[in-house]
Amino acid sequence: MSTLVPAGARAHLARRATTVRQSAVRDVFDIAMDPDLVSLAGGNPWLSGLPLEELGATAQRLIAQQGTASLQYGPGQGLASMRAAACTVMAADGIPDADPELVVITPGSQAAIDTACRAFADPGDVVVVEDPTFVGALTSFQTWELAAVATPTDEHGLVPEELDATLTRLAAEGRRVAFLYTIPSFANPSGLLLPAERRERVAEVCARHDVLIVEDNPYGQIAFDGEPVAPIAAAHRDRTVYLGTMSKIFSPGVRVGWALVPEALHREFYLCAESAFIHASTTSQMLATAFVTEFDWQGHVREVTGLYRARAAALQDALTEHWDPAFEYTPPAGGFFLWGSLPAGVDTVELMREGIAAGAVFVPGAAFTPVEGVHSTLRLAYSFVDEETLVEGVRRLAPVVDGAVAGRG
Amino acid sequence: MSTLVPAGARAHLARRATTVRQSAVRDVFDIAMDPDLVSLAGGNPWLSGLPLEELGATAQRLIAQQGTASLQYGPGQGLASMRAAACTVMAADGIPDADPELVVITPGSQAAIDTACRAFADPGDVVVVEDPTFVGALTSFQTWELAAVATPTDEHGLVPEELDATLTRLAAEGRRVAFLYTIPSFANPSGLLLPAERRERVAEVCARHDVLIVEDNPYGQIAFDGEPVAPIAAAHRDRTVYLGTMSKIFSPGVRVGWALVPEALHREFYLCAESAFIHASTTSQMLATAFVTEFDWQGHVREVTGLYRARAAALQDALTEHWDPAFEYTPPAGGFFLWGSLPAGVDTVELMREGIAAGAVFVPGAAFTPVEGVHSTLRLAYSFVDEETLVEGVRRLAPVVDGAVAGRG
Repeated sequence: MSTLVPAGARAHLARRATTVRQSAVRDVFDIAMDPDLVSLAGGNPWLSGLPLEELGATAQRLIAQQGTASLQYGPGQGLASMRAAACTVMAADGIPDADPELVVITPGSQAAIDTACRAFADPGDVVVVEDPTFVGALTSFQTWELAAVATPTDEHGLVPEELDATLTRLAAEGRRVAFLYTIPSFANPSGLLLPAERRERVAEVCARHDVLIVEDNPYGQIAFDGEPVAPIAAAHRDRTVYLGTMSKIFSPGVRVGWALVPEALHREFYLCAESAFIHASTTSQMLATAFVTEFDWQGHVREVTGLYRARAAALQDALTEHWDPAFEYTPPAGGFFLWGSLPAGVDTVELMREGIAAGAVFVPGAAFTPVEGVHSTLRLAYSFVDEETLVEGVRRLAPVVDGAVAGRG
Repeated sequence: MSTLVPAGARAHLARRATTVRQSAVRDVFDIAMDPDLVSLAGGNPWLSGLPLEELGATAQRLIAQQGTASLQYGPGQGLASMRAAACTVMAADGIPDADPELVVITPGSQAAIDTACRAFADPGDVVVVEDPTFVGALTSFQTWELAAVATPTDEHGLVPEELDATLTRLAAEGRRVAFLYTIPSFANPSGLLLPAERRERVAEVCARHDVLIVEDNPYGQIAFDGEPVAPIAAAHRDRTVYLGTMSKIFSPGVRVGWALVPEALHREFYLCAESAFIHASTTSQMLATAFVTEFDWQGHVREVTGLYRARAAALQDALTEHWDPAFEYTPPAGGFFLWGSLPAGVDTVELMREGIAAGAVFVPGAAFTPVEGVHSTLRLAYSFVDEETLVEGVRRLAPVVDGAVAGRG
């Protein structure tokens, strides 16, 4: 029998697979498991506040009494009960009238992003993104052989005039734009919140260019001050594919997300989803549905939002106390992340390595941008770390930051 | 605000999405929900024999006591415990020494098939398939813009010499063959079992042509007579991507499958999987792991295999009694399906419609082949229907079959 040697084996890889890179976030996932390290890397939600005893009893009931349904195949579009639960969550997001018939349940919203690529993008197409943007989306775009093109942002997120210019330029270049991918509320990683009036202008620009919008909103309800800003999809349903998820308000482990799809595109989106994974876990869908219909899920969201708000404040206090003021950031108004930058020229990938040696880990900005080169940006996640440990992490990283700033001075 | 009209909206679809078709199996899924209809369509496993009370207690414990882990993100490759459980299942499949480090857990094995396309196939590549083959695989290949090319089979499955000729012809045509996709044991839909000596020759042919094998084995342990035949991967690990699943031996609702990947290709496969869905449900993985480590899972497999054997026998008896002998089939030796054909020229898509009107539904052969045209083949699933109902379904369909045969006489 002939044996594949690694060099020969690589001839079996698709082009895309020869260039697929591990997400820097996942790369540090294993490192971040080291109990001696303070991890400011992963955006895990805080789960200890969940009513675990009661959820356990619910899971018991779903299997013992309804096991022939909860362990069986279900409809490809998702269970009707879960689609209704998704509409309940979307109402709290600011979309009061979502039609459950237009919802497709996916095994997490990464799978919904990936399905959007499958349904709407041909190889070589452009996806317009904020810079920085979600690393998981960039990896999905890469495997579908799409070009992620950054459109400029400011401290309020997408700049509609710049988006207009970007789309005009791409049209002049003859590029097909599959969609705008945007996280308007407390974006991962930037933490920015796109104001309501900009949302309208972004929708107007996309309509004028006839560009579809994929609006990813995992963090919208994690708002530190007041109510969530209504999603773009609320007023522009027919050109927006809206992505929601149970991951940040309940559990990422169940892997239940969804897309609310314009009616004219719904069937193809659903068939593309089914071709990828048939359907999301029935067991998970029934547990997530129970959380929305039988528990005080909004009370839980309020509770964890308060916790994240306090952690974000503690992180900022620690940064003020321990880090060189050359580290600049926009204070987060919601979500899981603080995004900032050091003076130009600092390489935060190198800084990350030094940070790990000093006992704390974050994610360097290079992970979140389609733009090659040295990046001086970094993301600090405060969602999963208690206040004392956050302060300790900042303290450990302080000399590393000082060294980097001094090295540029 | 401009409004997308459906015609305009379709301009937003990817090429692949304009041609994606609903799997005929899934299409009849909704129809098959009609309680007045006898469904011989869906390949659902029989779940009533599961120890649901005890599994419910396990689920309770996993959430109440380990909820901060079972509801949280996990490693992209899958939980170490689930990868070990997958190796236990593969040992019973006939692969005694699988390395858990080379296993990637996926949300069902459809997602593993789809990941194989992502990792190994460029648009325009060929996937060589048995004809007929699994409809879900064909749909996945279609969305990755791959050409499924059928290689001839006989009553024992793949014919190695024909495979050699097919690969020689494709090489002469300058086509890149991404992989051979094969279901050697009790295939869906054909039910055929590839003998051990043919497995060796198939591996030899693929080695000679340097073609990767994707071996899908959901039904291997559902063997009516004796032990499972060892998978191709058992002796040819370095050129075979082996796909396993909990769907047929435990539960399809948990959506837990896996791939055992050659070492030289493992990392790229894993990264491609992660880009599609991050990881399979942690909750589901922990429940599936518990089923393998804490329950008499092999006793359950023996029990349902006995049940499926009895149902297959009852189905064949009913066919002998009620259907025209012009319906020819190979008696299944395992798995969920009986595959047969009516005289050439009979269109079983039309027959399916008549069958539904007569009160019973099956899946027409057209669903399972990449070859266009009229097909006289059909699939009868016996896994989920009790013996009495199987007989009733056959009885209801008999006049429809008679009419079709007479129409051709």
